Amino acid sequence: MDVIVVINAGSSSVKFSVFGVSGSALGLVCNGNFEEIYTAPRFRIRHASGEVLAEQRWPEADPIGHGGAIAFLFDWLHSHSTGYRAIGAGHRFVHGGTRYASAVRVDDDVIANLEALVPLAPLHQPHHLSALKALAGRFPHLPQVACFDTAFHHQQPVIAAQFALPREITQQGVRRYGFHGLSYEYVASVLPHYDERAARGKTVVLHLGNGASMAALAGGKSIATTMGFTPVDGLPMGTRSGALDPGVLLWLMDQLKMDTCAIEKLLYHRSGLLGVSGIASDMRTLLESSDPAAAHAVDLFCYRVSRELGSLAAALGGLDAIVFTAGIGEHAPPVRERICRAAAWLGVSLDPAANARHGPRISTADSAVAAWVIPTNEELMIAEHTLEKLEEGHETVDQQSAAA
Amino acid sequence: MDVIVVINAGSSSVKFSVFGVSGSALGLVCNGNFEEIYTAPRFRIRHASGEVLAEQRWPEADPIGHGGAIAFLFDWLHSHSTGYRAIGAGHRFVHGGTRYASAVRVDDDVIANLEALVPLAPLHQPHHLSALKALAGRFPHLPQVACFDTAFHHQQPVIAAQFALPREITQQGVRRYGFHGLSYEYVASVLPHYDERAARGKTVVLHLGNGASMAALAGGKSIATTMGFTPVDGLPMGTRSGALDPGVLLWLMDQLKMDTCAIEKLLYHRSGLLGVSGIASDMRTLLESSDPAAAHAVDLFCYRVSRELGSLAAALGGLDAIVFTAGIGEHAPPVRERICRAAAWLGVSLDPAANARHGPRISTADSAVAAWVIPTNEELMIAEHTLEKLEEGHETVDQQSAAA
Repeated sequence: MDVIVVINAGSSSVKFSVFGVSGSALGLVCNGNFEEIYTAPRFRIRHASGEVLAEQRWPEADPIGHGGAIAFLFDWLHSHSTGYRAIGAGHRFVHGGTRYASAVRVDDDVIANLEALVPLAPLHQPHHLSALKALAGRFPHLPQVACFDTAFHHQQPVIAAQFALPREITQQGVRRYGFHGLSYEYVASVLPHYDERAARGKTVVLHLGNGASMAALAGGKSIATTMGFTPVDGLPMGTRSGALDPGVLLWLMDQLKMDTCAIEKLLYHRSGLLGVSGIASDMRTLLESSDPAAAHAVDLFCYRVSRELGSLAAALGGLDAIVFTAGIGEHAPPVRERICRAAAWLGVSLDPAANARHGPRISTADSAVAAWVIPTNEELMIAEHTLEKLEEGHETVDQQSAAA
Repeated sequence: MDVIVVINAGSSSVKFSVFGVSGSALGLVCNGNFEEIYTAPRFRIRHASGEVLAEQRWPEADPIGHGGAIAFLFDWLHSHSTGYRAIGAGHRFVHGGTRYASAVRVDDDVIANLEALVPLAPLHQPHHLSALKALAGRFPHLPQVACFDTAFHHQQPVIAAQFALPREITQQGVRRYGFHGLSYEYVASVLPHYDERAARGKTVVLHLGNGASMAALAGGKSIATTMGFTPVDGLPMGTRSGALDPGVLLWLMDQLKMDTCAIEKLLYHRSGLLGVSGIASDMRTLLESSDPAAAHAVDLFCYRVSRELGSLAAALGGLDAIVFTAGIGEHAPPVRERICRAAAWLGVSLDPAANARHGPRISTADSAVAAWVIPTNEELMIAEHTLEKLEEGHETVDQQSAAA
């Protein structure tokens, strides 16, 4: 069976999913991840059924890195999954800049373009590239496709994307790109099966995970989103601050003498739910805690979601539906309940029993604005784009090889 | 006649208004300003009728500074306005920190507290203090009152004021304070004369001037506002950026090697309408221009106002009225029209003829959400607070003198 390998490489981890290809249909075969690849590497792979197929640990003194992880994964797949043949790899890229409005088949030019985007996503882009280049080095004939978290927001109106900065800054690419696009695209692709009116109309999708953002979809197209130039803007997240007065950064530099590295650490890793609660970045832990600081962090999260919902409804000029997705959105009924109750003024009427059983519809039958829970599937979206690009290009392995 | 002198001292200017006191009633006698006090000072004073009473210029080599301006003003008042006796001075202070929920009679402790707030408003607070101390040095017996732009927002809920930052940062005063409070307080004080329902209910006031912000009032109390830790956050303004992804500042430092001073200049003086249009910071100039860049800057301003209106309506859980005030809010019908049309989804129905003649009511009789134009009067608010503090304290001039 032909398979597509989906790769999501971060600074210290590589997540992967293997999809079997049957005509134009894709089915998950197995998935897993490498963690702490530069410190204390470990690997785990599960069958689609959830069964653990293999686990491995490396000694702390043996940092395998992106290259080692990619090599180990493909060796493992070749030796353990007889009859499977990788026909392509799809990579999640956080940043496609202003250039990429959709997924792209990777060649040398594309790699150069992606490297030029590193300054826009210094915490993510280099690691995506490491994995991609490691795989190209090992299997130069394997077609690779880059899929972008920014692409789905590419066509948002200029007015939504622009900061009120001088043109010479804007022209250097300082604008709101928006992220989680593969998740929004997936939700938009399945929304018609749930709610035709929402799919045609004005819908806000709430991607609430450890990273969290919201997007306003008009007829399935993104017209505004809470994340901006980087994935630190907008909502408070597990460990990220979300929106801040720019004056806060000036104060951190002037008064606390923090440099960009220290500020980046503060805003990306020590803020959000973790920073406010002082307890945990994980919503489950906070919901289970009886500590008032945990409750306060949850309050702040729900409050900011509610404020952004008003702002995105304004971008849409009204609201037909809201859709919860990602970790918190799919699995935390108390958070959904509070957000829905705060959205009563917009016409959301919650069905508590449906919310408790995770919907999919969690609004009452007569709710003016429908509310849904729809599990996201970014990996499937990447696999689909990869397959499309393979079919679309009609490139032979030889041509790809020549280009590489 | 007893008079109260209201002073608004900036980095390069001192604005003043003189109010006559008759019982508890205050009437404007004259007002004026000093400009470029450290470069090419000039002074102008007008009678309340608008008639220019006096003008003066100093040579470029003669920077009079705050002290010289204050001395000149009081000398002029003493020699030109026979029968007027200054019984108190009220100062606009941009920052009252977490301490001051209302105006305060100034003594040495208060001065020390206000000096401690300099790091929170380095561009404003030192100049307010310069004028205050210059006046205290010259007239130690004159009671002075500090009135704060932050005070009206003091009671906003913690959840609205808090950033998702670690507690050790929040505890150092890094929170949303909100500004333009004297303007919002004035509008809230007169709103019952215009619209009882709005005064009791859910109203967003749009203070749109060269500096611009919006505040959500529930029963006349501020529960949320767009400006945050500093007056650079929220809406784009004449030359200020408004809200930015924190990552933009990190990029400016890392990629353009800008320091805090350069970034401050960029965000406070070269951004906003000026930066986007490349033409002017003044809304009148942009509205009169046929340049598409001018139109785009106006578009962006109106779009951001519309987004924030949705966000503040969410904070209120609905909307009964909107009120336009300050320079643009009071004098730019095309801007009001676009904001009202974009707010149709909230229930705003514009009356174009009423809008053209500046209202006061600019919504149709059957509009679900009322829209008003109400001229602000921050100076009167300061004079009123000053008079209250003079009456409240029953302090004698001697006690005040002993304290100073």
